[in-house]
Amino acid sequence: MVSKKIKGGVTAAKGFLAAGIHAGVKPAPTLDLALVFSQAEGPIAGVFTKNQLAAAPVIVDRGKLQKGRGRAIIINSGNANACTGKQGLRDAKAMATSVAQQLKVSPATVYVGSTGIIGRPLPIRAITQALPHLVRRLRRSGHTEAAQAIMTTDTKPKEAAFQTRIGKQIVTIGGMAKGSGMIHPDMATMLAFLTTDVAIDSESLQQALMKAVDQSFNCLSVDGETSPNDTVLCLANTSAGNPILKLGSARFNTFQNLLNQVCLSLALQVIRDGEGCTKCVKIQVEGTKTTKEAKQVAQTIATSPLVKTALFGEDPNWGRILAAIGRSGIRLLPNAISLRLNGVPLVKYGLRIGPHAEKRAQRIMKRKQYSIRATLGRGPGFSHIWTTDLSFQYIEINSSYPS
Amino acid sequence: MVSKKIKGGVTAAKGFLAAGIHAGVKPAPTLDLALVFSQAEGPIAGVFTKNQLAAAPVIVDRGKLQKGRGRAIIINSGNANACTGKQGLRDAKAMATSVAQQLKVSPATVYVGSTGIIGRPLPIRAITQALPHLVRRLRRSGHTEAAQAIMTTDTKPKEAAFQTRIGKQIVTIGGMAKGSGMIHPDMATMLAFLTTDVAIDSESLQQALMKAVDQSFNCLSVDGETSPNDTVLCLANTSAGNPILKLGSARFNTFQNLLNQVCLSLALQVIRDGEGCTKCVKIQVEGTKTTKEAKQVAQTIATSPLVKTALFGEDPNWGRILAAIGRSGIRLLPNAISLRLNGVPLVKYGLRIGPHAEKRAQRIMKRKQYSIRATLGRGPGFSHIWTTDLSFQYIEINSSYPS
Repeated sequence: MVSKKIKGGVTAAKGFLAAGIHAGVKPAPTLDLALVFSQAEGPIAGVFTKNQLAAAPVIVDRGKLQKGRGRAIIINSGNANACTGKQGLRDAKAMATSVAQQLKVSPATVYVGSTGIIGRPLPIRAITQALPHLVRRLRRSGHTEAAQAIMTTDTKPKEAAFQTRIGKQIVTIGGMAKGSGMIHPDMATMLAFLTTDVAIDSESLQQALMKAVDQSFNCLSVDGETSPNDTVLCLANTSAGNPILKLGSARFNTFQNLLNQVCLSLALQVIRDGEGCTKCVKIQVEGTKTTKEAKQVAQTIATSPLVKTALFGEDPNWGRILAAIGRSGIRLLPNAISLRLNGVPLVKYGLRIGPHAEKRAQRIMKRKQYSIRATLGRGPGFSHIWTTDLSFQYIEINSSYPS
Repeated sequence: MVSKKIKGGVTAAKGFLAAGIHAGVKPAPTLDLALVFSQAEGPIAGVFTKNQLAAAPVIVDRGKLQKGRGRAIIINSGNANACTGKQGLRDAKAMATSVAQQLKVSPATVYVGSTGIIGRPLPIRAITQALPHLVRRLRRSGHTEAAQAIMTTDTKPKEAAFQTRIGKQIVTIGGMAKGSGMIHPDMATMLAFLTTDVAIDSESLQQALMKAVDQSFNCLSVDGETSPNDTVLCLANTSAGNPILKLGSARFNTFQNLLNQVCLSLALQVIRDGEGCTKCVKIQVEGTKTTKEAKQVAQTIATSPLVKTALFGEDPNWGRILAAIGRSGIRLLPNAISLRLNGVPLVKYGLRIGPHAEKRAQRIMKRKQYSIRATLGRGPGFSHIWTTDLSFQYIEINSSYPS
C-alpha cells in the first residue's frame, strides 16, 4: 500500500485528542491555548532551535526529552516566554505541571510550546485558570481549533495527515504547524507538533524525526532568521499494534517516508503562508564537492535580499544569483557554472545565454511556484532549499511599531 | 599639526589630474568614463572583492598589482564587465592598453575599474574612441566630474581629502568613491580610488590600505551583498618630498591615520547615500572572546531583515536584536547580555528594562543616525559595523525589471 493523505490533523492517528481555546494571552476571542493528548504514554522525539538564546519552553522540553516519554503537549500563542530569565523557566514548568495535574499524568510527560512576543512575562494565571476548560474540550475533532490556537501571523491553520500499511497494521502520522520563520514583529517562530500511533522506541523516533526535519522544515528560508522558540515534537503511542520498528529495517524506512511526507506537507504550507510572500521558489544546487557546500550555496542564494527582490519583481536577474553564488564562501570554477529556471537555461558555462532565454524565464517567473537550478561542475554534492520573495508587504508587516 | 579636511577630492594631492566624460556606455549625456592620472609613476596598492566570481577588471588589476607600480586608473560606469568570460578579460586589458598609448606610459601601470550591469559585453569601441577626448580633459579641477562619471545609483558624487604634516612635509590623501554595497539591479559595487603625494614603498602602502579598508569600507553593510567588482585602489607618487615612510614608524602611523580618515569619510558618504536608506546605524559589539566573534555578531545583527525593518519602523524591538545575536553562531551567556541604544539601556543581564526605556529609545530612533551597543560579557573582544535600514524604497528599487 502506498501512503494516503487523510483528514484529521494532529488527531488523525489512533488514540489522540486535541482542543484549542481562548485563555486570555491574546485579546478575546482569539484562540491562544492548545492541548494535544495521547490516551497512552509513549516515546517522544524533539528537534529545537539552534539559537543560543533558547526560550524557556525549549529549555524545559530539552530537559524532559532525556527521558524521552510523552503524553501531552500544551502550547500558547501570543507570548514567546523568551528572554524572560528564571521567571520564564518557572512559568514554563508551572504550565506543564498544571496540565499534568488536570490530566492526572506525570509532569515529566507533558511538553510545552510558546510563540509570540519576546521578553514579556507569560500571563501564567490566565493560562492555568483556563486549563480545566481546555481539558474538558479534549476530543478527536479538536484538531483544527488546536491548529488555530497556535497561530500568530498565519493566515490559516496548517494541518497534515498521512497513513500507510506497515506489515499488517495501518499506521498514521498527523500534525499541525504554525509560522514561517521569524517573520513578524516580536512573533517568534516555527512550531510543529506531530502525533503517530506507530510502535517505535524513542531513539529510533528521534533519528527519524531529525532526518524528516532536515528534509523539510530545515529546507525553508523566509528571511534567514531563526527564533528562540523553533520546536518540532513528535509524540508516538503504540495504538497501531505493529511490532516495534527497528532502526534501519524496511518497515522503519516505510515509517520514515511517511514522516517525511507529513513534515514536507506542513513545511510547504508554512512557506506558502509566509507573510508578504507572493512566490515560493525551490533553489536547487548541484555539482559542489560536498552536500555541505551545496547547502551553503543554496542558503546564500535563498537569503540574498537582491535575489529575493528580483523574485518579487519577476525579474530574471541571473547576475544577482551568480553574485550570491560567488560570495557563498566555497571555491568555484567561474566557467563551469550554469543556471536554469524551470529548465530554461539562463547561463551556460559562466556566460549569458541571451535576451530570448530571459524573456522565457520572465514568463515563468509570473507563476507562484517554480525552481532555480545552479550547476557548479565541481563534484557530486547537491542540495535544495525553499525560499520566498521579499515584498513590500514584508516591510510593511515588519516595520510597524506594535503599539 | 593635526590633520585637516581640504577640498579637491582625487586630485587634492600634488601631481594628480582627473577627468570625467560621457563615452556612450550609458545613455547621453550621463558621464560614464573617468580617468585619474599621476604625473609621476609610483607605488600602488589594492584591495578587491572576496567574491569568487571576480569581474574582468578585478582579475586584470590583481595581476598588475604583483609589480605594484601605478600611473593611471581608468573607470567606466554602466557596465560591470563581470561574468563576461575571455572576451571580458580582453576588453579590460584593451581598455588599459589604449589609455597607456594615449598617455604614453607603460600598460603595466594603468589600472581598470568597471561598475554597472552584469553579463553584457563591454562596449569597448565606444570607450576607446572617447579616450583622446578624456585625456585632453585631464586637469587639476577634474576631480568632481571624475567622481560623477563613476556613479551608478548614487544620488551624489563622493569625494574626500585630508592633509597633515609628516616631518617637514605636508602630505595629502584624496579620493572618490561610488555605490553602497550591491544594492541596485545589476549595479555592481563599491569602488574607491585614492591618491596621495606621500613617498612610500608599495609593500607599506599595501599594508596601510588593507588596515584602512578594514576599518572603513569593510565596516559597511547595506544588504550583506558583495559584488564581483568591489575595488579600492590607492596610487602614490613622491611629490610631497618626504623621506620614504618605514612600516611601523611614527611617521608611517601618522600616514595610516590620515588614510583611515579619508577611507572612513568616503565609506560614511557611501552608506548615507544607500538607496532606500533612511537610517545610518552603528552596531557596536563588545565582550566577546575574540574580535572575530564580535565581527560575526555585528554582521548578523547588521544584515538581519527583521532588525533592519525595525530600524526603518523606528521600533525599539530589542527581541529581534537578541534573536540575531542568538543565531550568530558564537557561544553566549544569556543572562550576561545587555543592550543600549545611544546609551539608553533596553536589556540588562538578559532581561527587559521596561516600557519607559523603550519609549526613550523610540524617540532616539526617529533620528537619522544613532548607535546600538551589545555587551556580551564573555571576554575582551569588540568590533563595530555601520548598517542601514530596510525600507519600501529598497524593494521598489530592487524589484523593478530593467526593461
